[in-house]
Amino acid sequence: MKFMVEVRIRLKKGMLNPEASTIERALALLGYEVENTDTIDIITFTMNEESPEDVRREVEDMCQRLLCNPVIHDYEFSITEMEG
Amino acid sequence: MKFMVEVRIRLKKGMLNPEASTIERALALLGYEVENTDTIDIITFTMNEESPEDVRREVEDMCQRLLCNPVIHDYEFSITEMEG
Repeated sequence: MKFMVEVRIRLKKGMLNPEASTIERALALLGYEVENTDTIDIITFTMNEESPEDVRREVEDMCQRLLCNPVIHDYEFSITEMEG
Repeated sequence: MKFMVEVRIRLKKGMLNPEASTIERALALLGYEVENTDTIDIITFTMNEESPEDVRREVEDMCQRLLCNPVIHDYEFSITEMEG
């Protein structure tokens, strides 16, 4: 079966996010007042596996080993079965 | 009223995405077979405006002027009214 995976990665609460601060400051310079700016990275891909449980195990592994830095990142992912 | 805005930015279809290719290759080296890897950037922030329409107009403006490069990016955003 083919699955669509979306991994959502963000800095843990309390970590400095210079990218977000820069965006907020740049928006302010253009006259837009926004607050609580934050950034999230999303990685999507497809996988062929026997079951959603297999996908879940593999993706959890990938996050720990490569996609995220568990020291500074929180992550969550969604798995959707694709038709065909 | 206070609104939560989430802007989703991705490269247009057909644009090379070196970040995604690198992730896919690195995953392959670790033994994970994934396909159609893609990356999406999300920016979230809150805004105080009179109405959702005002927010929509402002955010559309921000995307065109600063957040996205309309030549290479597709973007979409969602607006949610916050309680309180």
